[in-house]
Amino acid sequence: MATLPLIEYEAASAEVRAVYDEIMELRGTDWVNNFWKALANDPATLKRTWESVKQVMAPGALDPLTKEMIYIAVSAAHGCPYCINSHTAAARTKGMTDAMLAELMAVVGMASETNKLVTGLQVELDEAFKDGGRK
Amino acid sequence: MATLPLIEYEAASAEVRAVYDEIMELRGTDWVNNFWKALANDPATLKRTWESVKQVMAPGALDPLTKEMIYIAVSAAHGCPYCINSHTAAARTKGMTDAMLAELMAVVGMASETNKLVTGLQVELDEAFKDGGRK
Amino acid sequence: MATLPLIEYEAASAEVRAVYDEIMELRGTDWVNNFWKALANDPATLKRTWESVKQVMAPGALDPLTKEMIYIAVSAAHGCPYCINSHTAAARTKGMTDAMLAELMAVVGMASETNKLVTGLQVELDEAFKDGGRK
Amino acid sequence: MATLPLIEYEAASAEVRAVYDEIMELRGTDWVNNFWKALANDPATLKRTWESVKQVMAPGALDPLTKEMIYIAVSAAHGCPYCINSHTAAARTKGMTDAMLAELMAVVGMASETNKLVTGLQVELDEAFKDGGRK
Amino acid sequence: MATLPLIEYEAASAEVRAVYDEIMELRGTDWVNNFWKALANDPATLKRTWESVKQVMAPGALDPLTKEMIYIAVSAAHGCPYCINSHTAAARTKGMTDAMLAELMAVVGMASETNKLVTGLQVELDEAFKDGGRK
Amino acid sequence: MATLPLIEYEAASAEVRAVYDEIMELRGTDWVNNFWKALANDPATLKRTWESVKQVMAPGALDPLTKEMIYIAVSAAHGCPYCINSHTAAARTKGMTDAMLAELMAVVGMASETNKLVTGLQVELDEAFKDGGRK
Repeated sequence: MATLPLIEYEAASAEVRAVYDEIMELRGTDWVNNFWKALANDPATLKRTWESVKQVMAPGALDPLTKEMIYIAVSAAHGCPYCINSHTAAARTKGMTDAMLAELMAVVGMASETNKLVTGLQVELDEAFKDGGRK
Repeated sequence: MATLPLIEYEAASAEVRAVYDEIMELRGTDWVNNFWKALANDPATLKRTWESVKQVMAPGALDPLTKEMIYIAVSAAHGCPYCINSHTAAARTKGMTDAMLAELMAVVGMASETNKLVTGLQVELDEAFKDGGRK
Repeated sequence: MATLPLIEYEAASAEVRAVYDEIMELRGTDWVNNFWKALANDPATLKRTWESVKQVMAPGALDPLTKEMIYIAVSAAHGCPYCINSHTAAARTKGMTDAMLAELMAVVGMASETNKLVTGLQVELDEAFKDGGRK
Repeated sequence: MATLPLIEYEAASAEVRAVYDEIMELRGTDWVNNFWKALANDPATLKRTWESVKQVMAPGALDPLTKEMIYIAVSAAHGCPYCINSHTAAARTKGMTDAMLAELMAVVGMASETNKLVTGLQVELDEAFKDGGRK
Repeated sequence: MATLPLIEYEAASAEVRAVYDEIMELRGTDWVNNFWKALANDPATLKRTWESVKQVMAPGALDPLTKEMIYIAVSAAHGCPYCINSHTAAARTKGMTDAMLAELMAVVGMASETNKLVTGLQVELDEAFKDGGRK
Repeated sequence: MATLPLIEYEAASAEVRAVYDEIMELRGTDWVNNFWKALANDPATLKRTWESVKQVMAPGALDPLTKEMIYIAVSAAHGCPYCINSHTAAARTKGMTDAMLAELMAVVGMASETNKLVTGLQVELDEAFKDGGRK
């Protein structure tokens, strides 16, 4: 269990309930997941994090499914089981198939291998790649 | 500089040259980047890694640009400057704009923040997210 | 369960018991936690690690509670559930409140986000920050 | 250099300038560091990140210096040279001495060692530490 | 449980069964572990990964036991419980004793401590160590 | 440059000089590398870390070269350029050839790939591997 108590809706302040209500409305659910209940110990952190996630994950130059897959990739790289499971579930609701997940993980694995080969051998960056190829 | 010598084309064995030739042909370039030159110290590793990258990054259930962006995300999470720069350059050649890169990084940053919040507070996985929402 | 057997007091050598006795005395407890029982497979590692922890966590330029909170932050960054739980418990006994833990985690999360943004975008260090601002 | 262009004040939009102005005013400086200039490619990310940092690093249950030291600890754990240098510089302006920095790093190092020992040996959490000692 | 279904032998395609058969034959077992059953959702990834593992872990300039211990060290550094347990088991079948495992972990812990001390203090590389001491 | 000043021999206290003398004697060199000069800001940390490294890296159940290679593997996994370069140099003086280094890195890369695949897919540990195969 979490190292801070989970704040349930019934016990929550009006400020916290307002965030919970928005989460449930935006997702079309009648429950709030544990992550937010843990953050609710500090209402300012709860509100700020929710506002940030809403902004970052909204459609923009990248579509929401691509963003979810990037989220999964980062969570796999960092080793966060809660995040991997919850964002895999979210990506599925946005259209990710098993085949897409399998390929996503193949890229994550491949990138991890070459990341460590390059680092372990201290390979120097090629001139052409400097600034990420920005001209 | 790398902790192993970089094997230049002129000094390379036929086995290594065959891989270099394929890399240049597939990319339409007349040069090979340092990563492969470092791996070439062990021709079996060079060939295996190249074959793997070719397979993993090919179009499939995910398109090549999405795969490049996932590669960048993982490389940012792991902190590999060579990989970040080289795959940012590669993603640009496949159509990634500055706006897409900025949003990609916003997702990487956000995921990193929530990854550590969940982990640091040891939040327990909700029943609904178990198995990544797989039914 | 651990990949090495846990060495219980009854089965321990005199050398190991001496460390266990000191741990219990310093902490005012009548038990030793699993970490030390696992290390006890190699008495030299047990003794060295205990002596090191004692020295590092003692009051000095930083007070013990601040040190415990830094320990939690590092354990959250690395993703070590055992360490997060045990040092959160230790920090509580030294006066850490829920409000302090919530703020500590907010900083850990924020730092993680900006760490990855800076790394992912390969931002160059400003002249003024070189050497950590050391003059 | 960064993989996105740095947005200088002269070339910035009114929205970006407003954030830059606030950063300089709050810090009492006449310049803005590169991190913000890179984020400014996406004004929404710039504004959100600045508002978040301001909120998280403000005095609260923890004082600003302790927060800076936690920031350094996380940045050291993740290996972000820009972050380590810039927050070490910031912590110095808030009163961190060389002796405090040396002890901070000793804790970071010690935590890293025990994190990996516990993980590598897969030591099971003691009953007493569950939920971070929360009753 | 895994976020992709585990493909059991009975339900597997001929292509997948061929890999499973080879795994069991090489290891002298009548079962296949979950890792491969998860990868089997993408037969190309299964085959490629198995071929790679076989090549990398074969006797060469390093013996198989040393390779297994390096595998454990990396898995401990990255925090992958499945990998730590499975490769510790594999190393034991190749002759790793408890004393060897205890020393292996002592090195992993020590390296982790000094890695973070060097990084956290941003120590500059000595001239003599450049290129990994390569002349 | 480092965020703490490097303490040169001429400016060092007797306590620090004693450690420096021992480092140079044991290694048969007339210089001390920057890592120790940075730690010397806190003589207790310098002495403790040196004693620990000496103990951990001494011949035991594992030989010194194997230990150096494990050190490199962990440093590559964590991404510490100073550590990678200095321990690669140290391993060379103990007999590591280019072929051994290439294979070591192949294992590090492979382990990194499978670490992330297992984690990203949340594969459950097989019964047979529990406790690292300990009976």
